[in-house]
Amino acid sequence: MHSNDQLHTDIPKLDVQTGKEVAAYIDTLTKPTGSLGRLEEIAIKLAEITGERFPEVSPPAAILFAADHGITEEGVSAYPKEVTVQMVQNFLQGGAAMNAFCEQIGALFTIVDVGVAGSIEHPNLVAKKVRQGTRNFFVENALTNDEVMQALQVGQEQVQTALNNHAKSLILGEMGIGNTTTASAIIGVITGGELKQLIGPGTGLDDAGVAHKYRIIKQALAARKPNRHEPFDILEKIGGLEIAAMAGAMLEAAKERLPIIVDGLICTAAALIAKEMNPRVVDYMFVGHQSFEPGHAKALQILGEEPLLDLHMRLGEGTGAAVAFPILLSAVGMLRHMATFDEAGVSEKQ
Amino acid sequence: MHSNDQLHTDIPKLDVQTGKEVAAYIDTLTKPTGSLGRLEEIAIKLAEITGERFPEVSPPAAILFAADHGITEEGVSAYPKEVTVQMVQNFLQGGAAMNAFCEQIGALFTIVDVGVAGSIEHPNLVAKKVRQGTRNFFVENALTNDEVMQALQVGQEQVQTALNNHAKSLILGEMGIGNTTTASAIIGVITGGELKQLIGPGTGLDDAGVAHKYRIIKQALAARKPNRHEPFDILEKIGGLEIAAMAGAMLEAAKERLPIIVDGLICTAAALIAKEMNPRVVDYMFVGHQSFEPGHAKALQILGEEPLLDLHMRLGEGTGAAVAFPILLSAVGMLRHMATFDEAGVSEKQ
Repeated sequence: MHSNDQLHTDIPKLDVQTGKEVAAYIDTLTKPTGSLGRLEEIAIKLAEITGERFPEVSPPAAILFAADHGITEEGVSAYPKEVTVQMVQNFLQGGAAMNAFCEQIGALFTIVDVGVAGSIEHPNLVAKKVRQGTRNFFVENALTNDEVMQALQVGQEQVQTALNNHAKSLILGEMGIGNTTTASAIIGVITGGELKQLIGPGTGLDDAGVAHKYRIIKQALAARKPNRHEPFDILEKIGGLEIAAMAGAMLEAAKERLPIIVDGLICTAAALIAKEMNPRVVDYMFVGHQSFEPGHAKALQILGEEPLLDLHMRLGEGTGAAVAFPILLSAVGMLRHMATFDEAGVSEKQ
Repeated sequence: MHSNDQLHTDIPKLDVQTGKEVAAYIDTLTKPTGSLGRLEEIAIKLAEITGERFPEVSPPAAILFAADHGITEEGVSAYPKEVTVQMVQNFLQGGAAMNAFCEQIGALFTIVDVGVAGSIEHPNLVAKKVRQGTRNFFVENALTNDEVMQALQVGQEQVQTALNNHAKSLILGEMGIGNTTTASAIIGVITGGELKQLIGPGTGLDDAGVAHKYRIIKQALAARKPNRHEPFDILEKIGGLEIAAMAGAMLEAAKERLPIIVDGLICTAAALIAKEMNPRVVDYMFVGHQSFEPGHAKALQILGEEPLLDLHMRLGEGTGAAVAFPILLSAVGMLRHMATFDEAGVSEKQ
């Protein structure tokens, strides 16, 4: 029986001293005190995370975990399950939204099959399939304890690969038809929020579809009874494989002092799982954007993080994190390129 | 006596047909309909502005207009007036926040002296001084009718230069100690909003300073009585030279179908002036960010535009527009790089 202890995720404390030094340095730069708002807070947090006075975030690694969800048998998604395989191929050919944004920001892009139901062969696919999608959590547990552990470790390993490739920050994304259902169930369990208010249209359900999805999740949770305080139990009973992998990646990134940019609903469900495994992981997270899915705001309350963007996006794939990434670059640019009042010979406040 | 008519700003209508074609095309891309939220709206608006199905926004021109304000004699700023000259030198040496962000986004950076009180010699400074700062609008009109016209034309000319340099979008910024006072007065006149709720700390006044600034503006407006419906009259009575130049630049950019990214309080005051001169100019504007200055939200209501970012910034210089620019790039990247469902062989919604 696996548990958190085996993940070896000793996450260091933030480097508060370096953060203080950077905060003091920012106040010497040629601008009114505090006038760059959250960019200043981001720069300080990056300093605390990395322990560097002039932190770097480029290149980011963008790791996408793809997996299927047995719960799609209950008709909870607007798209057929085959779309997971088709979209993985689209990612491999460079045609998805996330490819466009990764090209823009110069991200090291990786797509990992951690549990797609189907066979994909491609030299650029990282093949780490734990199983052909989760079991249907409406009728049985989604994963075994061992499968959960394997998926978490796939996430951990991918962060080590990213570090070997000199990544300076981590963007996480996912692809998996049905995964707003899985994520909403997890968020419902961990936040204890009223389920009805957490469930949205996902990729595009109509009102009847959303109502059906709500009933399926409600009945499934009543049957599975996941233990809110046992993240392994939640993953076993609900899934999914890409969510477990993202949680593992987050824990590993925090252990390695790598800044994490969290995406929307699915990625935030993984962040809640990771937080249950080690609360300190949240110190290493930025939240890219506020998803249009209703459960996201509730999940972010528990995470205690303010999103950087609110552009009414609800695509997933890591797109909200990738589109937000340039804001981190701006925070870093402020630190690295601005002159101080002394250097520039500018008079200070009267 | 100069007036709007002499500015020759015939702004074309938006290309609604191309916008519709792009909207239909976006719905064929491999993502759930509408799931990229405001990025989709931005892409459509860029198509309407430029008339191009695959619009470009790079490189942006970032034009900063610097000028001084006679109203600083009334002690309305936290910084001494000399800082305008010093900051212009800082821009020329590449040490300001705006330099860092322009480097990040590959902007064509220009700094224009349209009315700095003081002498600056530098090969990269565009010297277009109309006069050595405005007159103090607490005691007299800030500018003559002729000076307003000259400043507007400086703005227009700079857009032509940017077009010659192959700029594909326009970021406007400013530097001028005292200009939150001038901008707040303009916003007060045009919005008719309660002055007390529009006035903030600018570069860092304390509560007593803000109260003093409020009294100065209130008395000055009572004495000058600018005509809310006469933008020339407002600029003559209040100033400022950089605000007139930005308004001129906006009108010229719209005439040339160049997308405009508006910055914070001062730039938005210029946008309100430009709108009074030709309401159609607003069709060509994006608003980069929500400034922390209280008057900004009120001004944006009149402009009818939602800001792209809300990062609690209040620096000016064009920084909020520059930090927001990558969002436009993402919208363009979506159009240019994503595959359609047909191309990618991805199944559509059930």
